[in-house]
Amino acid sequence: MQMTDIIAKKRDGEELSTEEIAYMIKGYTKGDIPDYQMSAMCMAILLRGMSDRETLDMTMSMTTSGENLDLSPIEGIKVDKHSTGGVGDKTSLVLCPMVSACGLKVAKMSGRGLGHTGGTIDKLESFPGFNTNISEEKFFENVNKIGISIMGQTADLVPADKKIYALRDVTGTVPSIPLIVSSIMSKKLASGSDVIVLDVKCGSGAFMKTKSQAKELARGLTRIGRLAGRKCAAVITDMDQPLGYAVGNALEVKEAISVLRGQQKGDLLELCLTLGTCMLTEAGFAETKDEARKMLRKTIKDGSALKKLAQMVEAQGGDARAVYDTSLLPEAKYKLPVYSTESGYVRGIQAEQVGLVSMHLGGGRATKDSVIDLAVGLVLDKKIGDHVDEGELLGTIHANDEKKAKEAVELLRRCYRFSSENHARTPFIKGII
Amino acid sequence: MQMTDIIAKKRDGEELSTEEIAYMIKGYTKGDIPDYQMSAMCMAILLRGMSDRETLDMTMSMTTSGENLDLSPIEGIKVDKHSTGGVGDKTSLVLCPMVSACGLKVAKMSGRGLGHTGGTIDKLESFPGFNTNISEEKFFENVNKIGISIMGQTADLVPADKKIYALRDVTGTVPSIPLIVSSIMSKKLASGSDVIVLDVKCGSGAFMKTKSQAKELARGLTRIGRLAGRKCAAVITDMDQPLGYAVGNALEVKEAISVLRGQQKGDLLELCLTLGTCMLTEAGFAETKDEARKMLRKTIKDGSALKKLAQMVEAQGGDARAVYDTSLLPEAKYKLPVYSTESGYVRGIQAEQVGLVSMHLGGGRATKDSVIDLAVGLVLDKKIGDHVDEGELLGTIHANDEKKAKEAVELLRRCYRFSSENHARTPFIKGII
Repeated sequence: MQMTDIIAKKRDGEELSTEEIAYMIKGYTKGDIPDYQMSAMCMAILLRGMSDRETLDMTMSMTTSGENLDLSPIEGIKVDKHSTGGVGDKTSLVLCPMVSACGLKVAKMSGRGLGHTGGTIDKLESFPGFNTNISEEKFFENVNKIGISIMGQTADLVPADKKIYALRDVTGTVPSIPLIVSSIMSKKLASGSDVIVLDVKCGSGAFMKTKSQAKELARGLTRIGRLAGRKCAAVITDMDQPLGYAVGNALEVKEAISVLRGQQKGDLLELCLTLGTCMLTEAGFAETKDEARKMLRKTIKDGSALKKLAQMVEAQGGDARAVYDTSLLPEAKYKLPVYSTESGYVRGIQAEQVGLVSMHLGGGRATKDSVIDLAVGLVLDKKIGDHVDEGELLGTIHANDEKKAKEAVELLRRCYRFSSENHARTPFIKGII
Repeated sequence: MQMTDIIAKKRDGEELSTEEIAYMIKGYTKGDIPDYQMSAMCMAILLRGMSDRETLDMTMSMTTSGENLDLSPIEGIKVDKHSTGGVGDKTSLVLCPMVSACGLKVAKMSGRGLGHTGGTIDKLESFPGFNTNISEEKFFENVNKIGISIMGQTADLVPADKKIYALRDVTGTVPSIPLIVSSIMSKKLASGSDVIVLDVKCGSGAFMKTKSQAKELARGLTRIGRLAGRKCAAVITDMDQPLGYAVGNALEVKEAISVLRGQQKGDLLELCLTLGTCMLTEAGFAETKDEARKMLRKTIKDGSALKKLAQMVEAQGGDARAVYDTSLLPEAKYKLPVYSTESGYVRGIQAEQVGLVSMHLGGGRATKDSVIDLAVGLVLDKKIGDHVDEGELLGTIHANDEKKAKEAVELLRRCYRFSSENHARTPFIKGII
């Protein structure tokens, strides 16, 4: 088998065989196939597409390129969730304790933040002492005992994806549905859960700008998940503004705790109820959506979800008191209000730019090796549809550097778009697949 | 400017600016842009195409990537010819002396053979003592004095093409009209001639399998040549069998001499008359095609074309007596007849396979560094449309190795395809653009 012939086949719009795809993924991961051949192949895949069969083969080849997590020592139904990347996305911190309180098992691997998006692992480290770098044994033990554990990704999970993604990033071959699907699903399959729920972001702040693109990706992800024998659902959600109000690690943890305490309604709660409903119904824990939503709401009302979070924090060495007293979480030195210079209805808040404001304050990573400040970030006061008068508060900057804080005030103000009328809004949940 | 952005632009089907193309060609030639980005770009160009403006910009950027030959010290109208690659293609050896005898100036750079195709430079070296590695001064002097000189390509003519072609060869990005056009035309433009005539091969033995593909390439080549300010014409010719009868260096020289002596008619002569007609009319040396053909035929009848060949051989240190006495050319030790095992009409002769038979005998290069045997090759006796009886002679193998000779007999036999009826043939000259 020759890589040049395989490239030519895809270039001409033909379907690659299972053997050809395995040869290519194995060869590239091992270093036998050079970057310049793989990048030409990625471009051919991007422009010619792949059938479901090919995408599944590619996903499975990538899944088996490294270690796979065997979750069989954990009793019960294991659930996992993935988001295509958002700003202010603290969903896992709310959703995982809720579904765990309903009896589902959460044995989740999460990543760190890079660029304008944050990562669950960083956010959890806001709890003083919280260890995300636990052993597999401890991870399994925790899930079996309390029903939930979230740890950092081990290095050898899907090395093929690591290498292919780095190449796609510098060769203009990121926006390809089969390549995105195989990248996401290979990691989810290698992580071993029975039920996988996907949050596909859609809008100006997301990778998928239109609903039809998001739908196509959502269909691709669930199709491959189901073909690989997993229960799968995808929710398409709006990203024309950040999710919730807080952006920044400890600030997002505080917001998650507010939701778990029943003190905050809105898009974040709605998203967790929708994703949780998918998990419970796919797992057979609820017959209907209504039943599932009731179960989930109960975990907030009776405090069981908050308790799950506290149990997880404690089991991983963190200070669980912070769950009940958020003043124990890292706190920034400067808090600067951001006032509006315009009047009108908020029409949009550029999510990516808001993420960059947090990064500017030190809350995000410019490169993999950046050290981040867990305390800094921002809290929005106004969101789309809200009316704002000139001089009214738009949000607050949390900073540890006075100069950067002042710059951030100006940067955050520029993220807002206003209009004189309050236009009808598209629904936050755009579809469930 | 970022290469990733330029790739994304072409990936999305947009037109690249002159500056972007110049940045890309310059950067890649210098080594600032890595192979993996250039190969993704080549695939995007292959699948998305390029406008005439883009192709011209790419061609011009490549042309100026190295030295350009300034032919202004040569008086008169300089003509050049390029073929997209054929088996048994000794056209330059016949055509160049003919048009030179008509008064056109031939200052031609030619290449060596690789794989199943031969090169003019190798063929010329069949003349004992012939030097293809002459200085530019000597080259100019010869053309000014006798009207014709053919030398090897200097290393620094279009380094961008050398690098891009090597990459395309291993990344499945060869068959792209804009990439082929910029590769061919950058070299032709850098070589400095006023009139460029292109022989675009078409058929099973050629790169362009169908007439419409060949037409598209021919149109692309002539459009770019004309946009660059040169006189340009392209002839589309059949490659369902080797050109003429001989394949192998000295054997092809002998055949060329036969044609120049007026001893051989057929496709090779017809091709030289057609290409020569284009040159003479484009150069303004003839008003009509008829007039041009008459001028060309006269150079054979009066021996002036053969004399030009002899003058060129002598001026480049070769033994010019061999032009008049071909027994002075290299001759192989073994001559094995190939008899037909079937009866019928010859329907096709797989040109690429015939080229490989010659290579097997040592007449072609497997790699750039292979040493070749100028004497070996084969001479066909039957061509498409000829009737053959079982046991009749198909051709003759010329070899210096008995074992290889016997293998070649079998290999050549397998190149022939027969049918019981003599089907109507498509014309050899398929179009002039």
